[in-house]
Amino acid sequence: MEHINAIILAAGKGSRMNAAKPKVLQVLSDKTLLGHVLTQAQALCSQVFVVVGFGGDQVRHFFKDDSIHWVGQAEQLGTGHAVQQAMPHIDDDSISLVLYGDVPLIEQSTLEKLTAQVQKSGVALLSVILENPTGYGRIIRQNNQIQAIVEQKDASIEQLKICEVNTGVMAVDSGLLRSYLSKLDSNNTQGEFYLTDIIAMAVGTGKTIASVIVENECEVAGVNDKIQLATLERAFQKNQASQFMQQGLMLRDPARFDCRGNLSFGQDCEIDVNVVLEGDVSIGNNTTIAPNCIIRNTKIGDNVVILPNSLIEDAVIGDGAFIGPFARIRPESKIGNNVKIGNFVEVKKSTIGKGSKISHLSYVGDTVMGEEVNIGAGVITCNYDGVNKHQTTIGDGAFIGSDTQLVAPVVIGKNALIGAGSTITKNAPDNALTLSRAKQSSLKKGIKNHD
Amino acid sequence: MEHINAIILAAGKGSRMNAAKPKVLQVLSDKTLLGHVLTQAQALCSQVFVVVGFGGDQVRHFFKDDSIHWVGQAEQLGTGHAVQQAMPHIDDDSISLVLYGDVPLIEQSTLEKLTAQVQKSGVALLSVILENPTGYGRIIRQNNQIQAIVEQKDASIEQLKICEVNTGVMAVDSGLLRSYLSKLDSNNTQGEFYLTDIIAMAVGTGKTIASVIVENECEVAGVNDKIQLATLERAFQKNQASQFMQQGLMLRDPARFDCRGNLSFGQDCEIDVNVVLEGDVSIGNNTTIAPNCIIRNTKIGDNVVILPNSLIEDAVIGDGAFIGPFARIRPESKIGNNVKIGNFVEVKKSTIGKGSKISHLSYVGDTVMGEEVNIGAGVITCNYDGVNKHQTTIGDGAFIGSDTQLVAPVVIGKNALIGAGSTITKNAPDNALTLSRAKQSSLKKGIKNHD
Amino acid sequence: MEHINAIILAAGKGSRMNAAKPKVLQVLSDKTLLGHVLTQAQALCSQVFVVVGFGGDQVRHFFKDDSIHWVGQAEQLGTGHAVQQAMPHIDDDSISLVLYGDVPLIEQSTLEKLTAQVQKSGVALLSVILENPTGYGRIIRQNNQIQAIVEQKDASIEQLKICEVNTGVMAVDSGLLRSYLSKLDSNNTQGEFYLTDIIAMAVGTGKTIASVIVENECEVAGVNDKIQLATLERAFQKNQASQFMQQGLMLRDPARFDCRGNLSFGQDCEIDVNVVLEGDVSIGNNTTIAPNCIIRNTKIGDNVVILPNSLIEDAVIGDGAFIGPFARIRPESKIGNNVKIGNFVEVKKSTIGKGSKISHLSYVGDTVMGEEVNIGAGVITCNYDGVNKHQTTIGDGAFIGSDTQLVAPVVIGKNALIGAGSTITKNAPDNALTLSRAKQSSLKKGIKNHD
Repeated sequence: MEHINAIILAAGKGSRMNAAKPKVLQVLSDKTLLGHVLTQAQALCSQVFVVVGFGGDQVRHFFKDDSIHWVGQAEQLGTGHAVQQAMPHIDDDSISLVLYGDVPLIEQSTLEKLTAQVQKSGVALLSVILENPTGYGRIIRQNNQIQAIVEQKDASIEQLKICEVNTGVMAVDSGLLRSYLSKLDSNNTQGEFYLTDIIAMAVGTGKTIASVIVENECEVAGVNDKIQLATLERAFQKNQASQFMQQGLMLRDPARFDCRGNLSFGQDCEIDVNVVLEGDVSIGNNTTIAPNCIIRNTKIGDNVVILPNSLIEDAVIGDGAFIGPFARIRPESKIGNNVKIGNFVEVKKSTIGKGSKISHLSYVGDTVMGEEVNIGAGVITCNYDGVNKHQTTIGDGAFIGSDTQLVAPVVIGKNALIGAGSTITKNAPDNALTLSRAKQSSLKKGIKNHD
Repeated sequence: MEHINAIILAAGKGSRMNAAKPKVLQVLSDKTLLGHVLTQAQALCSQVFVVVGFGGDQVRHFFKDDSIHWVGQAEQLGTGHAVQQAMPHIDDDSISLVLYGDVPLIEQSTLEKLTAQVQKSGVALLSVILENPTGYGRIIRQNNQIQAIVEQKDASIEQLKICEVNTGVMAVDSGLLRSYLSKLDSNNTQGEFYLTDIIAMAVGTGKTIASVIVENECEVAGVNDKIQLATLERAFQKNQASQFMQQGLMLRDPARFDCRGNLSFGQDCEIDVNVVLEGDVSIGNNTTIAPNCIIRNTKIGDNVVILPNSLIEDAVIGDGAFIGPFARIRPESKIGNNVKIGNFVEVKKSTIGKGSKISHLSYVGDTVMGEEVNIGAGVITCNYDGVNKHQTTIGDGAFIGSDTQLVAPVVIGKNALIGAGSTITKNAPDNALTLSRAKQSSLKKGIKNHD
Repeated sequence: MEHINAIILAAGKGSRMNAAKPKVLQVLSDKTLLGHVLTQAQALCSQVFVVVGFGGDQVRHFFKDDSIHWVGQAEQLGTGHAVQQAMPHIDDDSISLVLYGDVPLIEQSTLEKLTAQVQKSGVALLSVILENPTGYGRIIRQNNQIQAIVEQKDASIEQLKICEVNTGVMAVDSGLLRSYLSKLDSNNTQGEFYLTDIIAMAVGTGKTIASVIVENECEVAGVNDKIQLATLERAFQKNQASQFMQQGLMLRDPARFDCRGNLSFGQDCEIDVNVVLEGDVSIGNNTTIAPNCIIRNTKIGDNVVILPNSLIEDAVIGDGAFIGPFARIRPESKIGNNVKIGNFVEVKKSTIGKGSKISHLSYVGDTVMGEEVNIGAGVITCNYDGVNKHQTTIGDGAFIGSDTQLVAPVVIGKNALIGAGSTITKNAPDNALTLSRAKQSSLKKGIKNHD
C-alpha cells in the first residue's frame, strides 16, 4: 500500500469561540481538538502535515512534536488553498488524507476504510447521514455513484431532502490531488478556493468517487463554538459510558460520569454519581468509588472502597484499601494493601505499609511508613524547613499519638509509642514510649464565664 | 380469598451483565433486583418460592431469609421448566403468581389487581402498552378478549403494529397451572419449555384470560445489562423525585438527586443539587440541604442548615443545628439543638449538648459533651490507646482552647477553660483554667532567610 | 409616553406547592418568584402595585420595600377582582401593565414592546405559541386581528388546533381598564371575575387588540407546584449557560452548572462539572474552576486555579492564586496574588499577602499576613477567647512551623521562624527563632505491643 500523508487543516481562528487561544487548542475530554486528530493521524500515516495560520506559533509550541510537519498558511483563502500549502512536501506516489483540526472525534478505523478505497478510484469521500441535514452540502448520487456535492443555497427542493452530506474528510491519490488543486478557482461569493470543488472535477473527468458513510455522527462533528464543544463533550462521554457499561461497569448515573483518558476495570466495580476520572486509571475487581471522587493516573487494586469526596492523583492503591471520605492522596504515593486513609488526611510522596491506618486530620508527606502503623488524629510530618524537604521513617507497628509533629528528618522505631501532642525532633527508639510534654496544671484564675 | 404463592424466577446468569455475581444481586437504588421483588412478594403472598440456578448458593447466602423457599433449577430449560420446579411444594387450592428476579420495580398494588382477577377466570396476565413494542410478544385480542400471544418473529405485519405486549407476569390457579405445565413441550428452536405457552392452552380449552394493563412501564422493565440497569435506576429516581416534589419538597435539580431508601420530610424543605440520601432519612420543617451532601439513616430536625459537602450517617440532628461545610458525622452521634458543627470536623459516637460549637478541624469521638461548650480549632479527643476506646466527658459551658488533646478517659469540668495547645491527660476541674504549656523563648540563631 | 403602573397579582396561596410559605416567595435561581417580577417591573414602571392575599403580611415583610404599593385582596374573587383592588390608586391618564407574581421570568424588553403597543390601540395582549396548547385559552384571529380568547372547554375542534395562547399578561390604558373592570361579571362556574373577559369587551366596542407574541416560552411560564418550579429552574439555567458559552465560557457540562446571580468572566476560563455560583461573581482571564466548587459574591483574578471541592464566599482572590482542593475561604478575606491556599484550610476575615502559602489543615482567622509567608500544616490562629475576637499579625517572610497556635492578639515579626508545635502567646521578634517546647524523652515502659 502506498504511504499516507495526513493533511490537517488547523489555520482558522474560530472567532465564535470568543477565545484568546486558537480554536484547535480547545480541550475535549483529555486532549485538545487538534490533539485528538493528531493521535488518529499519527497511528495511520507516515507523515503528518498540520496547516496552521492564526496562532500558529502557539499551536506549534503547545505540541512540541518534531515528527509533525508544520505548514503555514499566511492568508485564509479557503480549504483548497490550505491543502495546497502542504503539497510541495508530498510525493505524487502516495495518498493524501485531508482532516480537520476542529473535527476531533474521527476514528482510525474510519480513516483506514477511507484510505483503503483510494486504491480503487483515486478519490474517496467520507459522508454521513444526518437526521437534519440543513446547512450541509448534500451528496447527489445516481445509481449509487456520487455525482456531485450541492451546497444548501444551491440545492433544489428535492435535493434539500437528501440526508447524506459531505463531511469534508477525503483521501485522494496525491498526484491527482495536486493536479486538481492547480485547477481550483475562487470565483465564488467568498472568493475562496474550496477543496470540495475537486469532487466535481473528478466526476467531470469520468472518475468514480469512492465513499464511506460514517455511522457515528460524532466522528465528523465540527466544533465552532463553546456550545458545540460542550455538546460534543457530552456525546463523547455518553458513548464512552455506554461502552464501559456494556463491558460490565456499573454506573449509577451515566450522565454524571466523566472519563478523560483511559480506564480499565475488573469485574463487579461500581462507580457512583459525579465521579471524574482523568489520565490512565485502572481499577481491579469488586472495587467501589463513591460520589464526587476525582481520580487521576492511578492504579487501584481489588476490593478497594473509595468513600465520597476523595481526590487521588498519580498513586497506587493496594487491595482492600479503604480511602476517604475527604481523603487527598497526592502524587508518588503508594498505599499498601488494607491500608485505611480517613477523613481530612493528605498523603504526599509517601509509602504506606500494609494494614496501616491514618484515620483523621493528618498530613503525611515524604514518608516511608511500615506495616500496621497507627497514626492518630492531627499528626503532621514536618517535612519542610523552608528550604528543603526531608524524610520521615516510621517502623512497623508504631503508634503515633494524636497531634504529634514528626520533625523530619526523623526515624520512629518499630513498635514505638509516641505520646499525644509531642514534638519529635530526634529519632524515637524501637519498643519505647517517647514524648515531649509539659506538666498539666490548673489554676482558679483567668476563668471565663459564659454568663 | 385463596392464599397466594409467589414463584420468582431467578436462575439466569445474566451473561450480558459481564459480572462475577449473579444478575439478580445487582443493585438498583437501595436493594438488589431480587430484593425489590421479594419485598413486594412477601407483602402479598403467604409463601415465596425463588427458583435459583446460576450462583444459587450466593443468592441464598445473600438473603439469609428462612421464610423463603429456595428451589434449585439445575438445568436452564426455560421459564415453564423453572416454574415447574416449585410446583411440588404448592397446593392446587391456591394462586400461583409468577414473577421475575430481574424485573425489580413491580408494585404490590399491581400484583393485587392481578391476583384479584384469578378468582374469576383462573388465568390472569399482566400486559403493558409500549410506544415501541419491537421484540416483545404481542397480545392479540378479539372483542377485547386475549386470544393469543404472538412472538415478534411469528407476527404478521398487522400484528407487529400492536403495542400491547406480554410482560411474562401472570397469576394462575395453581391446580390449573400444574395441569398446563405438565403438557408443555420444548418443540421450538431453543428447545425450551416456555411458560407463555400456557396462555394458548388456556384459550384452547375455552378459558377466558383475565388481564391487567400496567400503566407505568418501569414496573415491568427487565434488566439484562448495565445500561438497562442504569436506565431503570434513573427512571426510578426521576419518578420518585416527582412524587417528592408533588408532596412539597423543593429540589433544585431532580435529575441530580438520589434517594436510595425512605425519605420523609416536613414543609418548606429545600435540597440543592447532587445530594444523595440512603436508608431511612427524615427531615423536619424548613430544613435546607446544600449541594453534594450524602446522608444515611439520619433523623434531622426543623430549621436545620446543612452546608455543602457534608456527610452524615446513623445520626440524629436537633432543631436549628448548623452542620458543615465539610462536616462528617459518623454513626451513633446525637447532635443537640442549635449545635454548630463546622468545617473539617469529624464527630463519632458522641452526644453534643445543645448550643455547643465545634467549628473547625477537630475530631470528637466517644464523647459526651454538655451544653454551650466551645471547642476550639484543632481539638482532638484521643479516644484510642491502640487497644481500647475510651470516653471523654466535657461539662456544660467548658471552653477548650485550640489544638488541645483530650487524652481519654478524661473529664473536663463545667465552665472549665483549657489553654490552647494543651495535652490534657488528667481530669480538669470546674471553673478553672487548666493547661500544659512550655515557656515561650526566642533566640537569634537558627534563622531561616528566604532571600 | 404615559407613565406605566405595574399591577402584579400575588394573592394566591398556591396550594399545589404544599408549602407553608406563600407561593410567590418560592425561590427560582437567586430570587423569589415575585422578586423576579418586581425587578423587571421596577425597571420599567413608575409605580408598582402588588395585590396580596394569602400570607400577605409575610410577603410584605419579606421585601421590606417602601416603593412598592401593597394592595390587599381579602377574598379571592378572580383576576379581574384582583386588578380592581389597585385601580383606586391609579390615574386614568396612564398605562396599567398586569403581571403575575408566579410568572417569574418575564423580561423587561418584552414588557417594553407590549406597553409600546398600548399607545396605538388602548389594549395590548401578550401571547405565546406553544407546541402543546392543551389547557390554555386560544387566541382567535381574523385577518390577523385578535377576535377572541376561547377557553379549552369552550373551543371547537378547529379552535383546539390553534397553538397561539393567552398569557394573561396585558397592558391597557388605565381609563379604559377601569371602565371595562366595572362591567365585569362573575356569571361563570367558578363565580369569579375574569380579567380575560375585558378582551371580549374591547373587541365588542370595536377596539383593535394589539398583541406581542413572546418568543421564549419560559418568559410566560407559570409556577404552580414544585415540579414546575424545578422545570423552570432548569430551563432558566440551561438558557443562561448557553448565553455564557456563546460569550466564550467553557463549561464541561452545561446541565451541571448553576449560576444564581450575576457572572462576568474574561477569556479562556473553564468551569468543570457541578459548580454552583451565587450572587455577584467575576472571573478574570484564563482562570479554571474544578468540579464541585461553590463560589458566592467573589472577585477572582486572572490565571487563578481553583481546585475541586472548594468553597469561597465574599472574598477577593488575586491573580495567579492557587486555591484548594477542599479549601474554604470565608467572608471578608482578601487573598493576594500568587497565594496558595491548600487542602483542609479555612481562611476567615483575613488578608493574605502575595506569594504566601497556607498549604494544609490550618485555620487562619482575623489575620493580617504579609508577603511570602509560609504557614506549616496544622497552624491555628486562636482568635477567640470565648468573648471577643482578636487579631493576628504576621510579618513578611515569616515561617510558622507546623501545628503552632498563634494566640491572638499577637504579632509575629518579619522573617520570624516559629518552631513546630509551639503555643505562641507573646509577640515573636523579627529574624529570630521563637518556640515553646518541652524536652523529648523516651522510656521503656508503657509499651504497647500490637501482637
